Amino acid sequence: MPNDANPLGSLFGGKLVQWVDLAASIAAARHARCHVVTASIDSMTFLRPVRIGQLVILKSSVNRVFRTSMEVGVKVFVEDLPTGECKHVSSAYLTFVAVDKDGARLPLAPLEIDPAQPDELRRYTGAGLRREYRLQLKQRTIERDGGA
Amino acid sequence: MPNDANPLGSLFGGKLVQWVDLAASIAAARHARCHVVTASIDSMTFLRPVRIGQLVILKSSVNRVFRTSMEVGVKVFVEDLPTGECKHVSSAYLTFVAVDKDGARLPLAPLEIDPAQPDELRRYTGAGLRREYRLQLKQRTIERDGGA
Amino acid sequence: MPNDANPLGSLFGGKLVQWVDLAASIAAARHARCHVVTASIDSMTFLRPVRIGQLVILKSSVNRVFRTSMEVGVKVFVEDLPTGECKHVSSAYLTFVAVDKDGARLPLAPLEIDPAQPDELRRYTGAGLRREYRLQLKQRTIERDGGA
Amino acid sequence: MPNDANPLGSLFGGKLVQWVDLAASIAAARHARCHVVTASIDSMTFLRPVRIGQLVILKSSVNRVFRTSMEVGVKVFVEDLPTGECKHVSSAYLTFVAVDKDGARLPLAPLEIDPAQPDELRRYTGAGLRREYRLQLKQRTIERDGGA
Amino acid sequence: MPNDANPLGSLFGGKLVQWVDLAASIAAARHARCHVVTASIDSMTFLRPVRIGQLVILKSSVNRVFRTSMEVGVKVFVEDLPTGECKHVSSAYLTFVAVDKDGARLPLAPLEIDPAQPDELRRYTGAGLRREYRLQLKQRTIERDGGA
Amino acid sequence: MPNDANPLGSLFGGKLVQWVDLAASIAAARHARCHVVTASIDSMTFLRPVRIGQLVILKSSVNRVFRTSMEVGVKVFVEDLPTGECKHVSSAYLTFVAVDKDGARLPLAPLEIDPAQPDELRRYTGAGLRREYRLQLKQRTIERDGGA
Repeated sequence: MPNDANPLGSLFGGKLVQWVDLAASIAAARHARCHVVTASIDSMTFLRPVRIGQLVILKSSVNRVFRTSMEVGVKVFVEDLPTGECKHVSSAYLTFVAVDKDGARLPLAPLEIDPAQPDELRRYTGAGLRREYRLQLKQRTIERDGGA
Repeated sequence: MPNDANPLGSLFGGKLVQWVDLAASIAAARHARCHVVTASIDSMTFLRPVRIGQLVILKSSVNRVFRTSMEVGVKVFVEDLPTGECKHVSSAYLTFVAVDKDGARLPLAPLEIDPAQPDELRRYTGAGLRREYRLQLKQRTIERDGGA
Repeated sequence: MPNDANPLGSLFGGKLVQWVDLAASIAAARHARCHVVTASIDSMTFLRPVRIGQLVILKSSVNRVFRTSMEVGVKVFVEDLPTGECKHVSSAYLTFVAVDKDGARLPLAPLEIDPAQPDELRRYTGAGLRREYRLQLKQRTIERDGGA
Repeated sequence: MPNDANPLGSLFGGKLVQWVDLAASIAAARHARCHVVTASIDSMTFLRPVRIGQLVILKSSVNRVFRTSMEVGVKVFVEDLPTGECKHVSSAYLTFVAVDKDGARLPLAPLEIDPAQPDELRRYTGAGLRREYRLQLKQRTIERDGGA
Repeated sequence: MPNDANPLGSLFGGKLVQWVDLAASIAAARHARCHVVTASIDSMTFLRPVRIGQLVILKSSVNRVFRTSMEVGVKVFVEDLPTGECKHVSSAYLTFVAVDKDGARLPLAPLEIDPAQPDELRRYTGAGLRREYRLQLKQRTIERDGGA
Repeated sequence: MPNDANPLGSLFGGKLVQWVDLAASIAAARHARCHVVTASIDSMTFLRPVRIGQLVILKSSVNRVFRTSMEVGVKVFVEDLPTGECKHVSSAYLTFVAVDKDGARLPLAPLEIDPAQPDELRRYTGAGLRREYRLQLKQRTIERDGGA
């Protein structure tokens, strides 16, 4: 919609993140079957601009469940309605936690991975890799200046 | 505003990201003095919920300028208006690029760091560290499965 | 979202229609592969209220294509995220036309119905029935008072 | 407002329905003097596009009151502010019911029709005719396939 | 709508001003029959809070036309839908100017006052009085500190 | 944002007032440290249009505190991001009151004026002057026609 565009006529980045967060929270809530909140956005790339009038398609999946947090991946495509052509415009990884009414963290049910599905496995090991790097980076930042 | 809240009465995560992206784009545009677009959100943490009626304060700064991209940091605080108490609720790092009317990347003017300002220096070296880890993670992901 | 609710805490009817029109226009644009506009909403029922925090799912399909207009059907469900339970909340039928840049109507490609799909056939004959009744009602209204 | 427009610069159909539903609910609430909800949109036509900057005028009236439901008609005009010219752009019929806090239907006070007002009478008999056709169509749909 | 409310459940003041400005601009555009812009809000009072679910009614009129500016008055009422009771909640006076495409001021057609209508006359002389006080206040402020 | 613009591509006046009211209410709430509501907008000028894509900067300050009300001033600037040029676009004065949960007025803590700050003093005496003129105008209006 024109209403979501920046002055150059393409979708405002912050609007796309809002939709990504919403799509991710649906996947997270469907896994947890309780109230979930975003703990962090771990990365989100903007590969090409989205133009007014293009259809935005968001696909989200829970990639891996840790004890009280889970990684959700979102892949964003745009479909050009006159031609039907579809392009990849963004990938995002977010961490969600499940909380009770007072905001206390709840343990999560494990995610069953079907080993016959190579995509599920690739997402599962990727989530572990991304987490390892986040923890290493955090450790080095703390060593350097006591965190921030 | 109530209008920005989720069903539990706290600020919807995606709304905060939208404001963070906007605050970051102002810092980026002031450095570049041309049109800028978000290339990626490299990380954003949600430390505690923001309640309806609290004042949200966003502080953004350009941390480091590479050849055609720059890292912008945003720190988010909430001020509880009745008490005046202020709390840190989120930190975010984003990468922006400057583009011309056709979307082609423009080179960026370098950022002058004042060595007498320890905060400027810490942000500058932190931006280098974060970039190094992102590149390493990307490399390992490509080795494993040809990227995604 | 709370922002879409009426004072009793359920989704405002007019908001749901807006989403229905959007979902229908996507199905219509994918069939026509050009710009489409809503010519009429032929009926839309509201079977039960939608509560704040429930997930709204819209399924739209082109039911039948006439010469320059097509009927699109939309079925709306809500999923209660904590339980996963899904309920039918609304059905709608809309008529769309395809138009060029000046608003002139364009002829539409026919819709291929797979006779082995009973749902496709049921929707196709239902669209004809609904159209027949709309034309009869229009005729009787004109006879009575010269239209309105 | 530009914010309500589709990519061709005219008012998005779903936005107009939202206003129609709101205008109709005011007429319904003024008759019922209690909380009312939309039970169905029985028809709404879009005769010509509404352009950005045009003034939209909505006129709603309760046409007929049945035992626990009422038909509300809405006629939509646009006024072109530079010329003052006014055009009919849409007609809609909606059914509303009055409900208590738990959502149970409430009986409605009858509508007094002034027989000296031909418009009131025409709307009253038209509402009966529309209802008769809706019930017939529903009956035939049920006979054919057990409803949907 | 809940979406327009502040944390205490009453209409956010800034939202009401937005509607007042819109209602005033319609009266101004209907008089000028060209594009109009708000030059100033000269006063607006908030007499009592507006609650969620109440109907807001705005009445605007052009009170007096000067050479290139005009005063528009807006009176705001709320109707409590369950009881039908109507209360005065706000009065506002705004100054509008008519401008061409480049933003240059256009002269305005005079306003014909019907001397037999005491309300029209009262609004006309009131507009003169308000203007006289605004000019006096501006003069004294300039004398004191060179304006601001 | 394009979404805040009128059909000529400049910021809709009513939107700017909404932001001014919000900025003023933050200054008022920080002084009162309790819930505050707008009692009146005493004047607001629109000196030049704000264009899409320009950065709007609002500066608000409590100018003077009376017994249960306070005057807040807001000055609005636009910064043209490509050039960094900053222009004054609007000045506004608003009156706020502090209220408890039932809407009853609360007395306000006095405002300490630093006599060494000529701006604070100028704003303080200006607030007194503006109040004096408002009361005189109100008195003359009552004498003439019993108020309205």
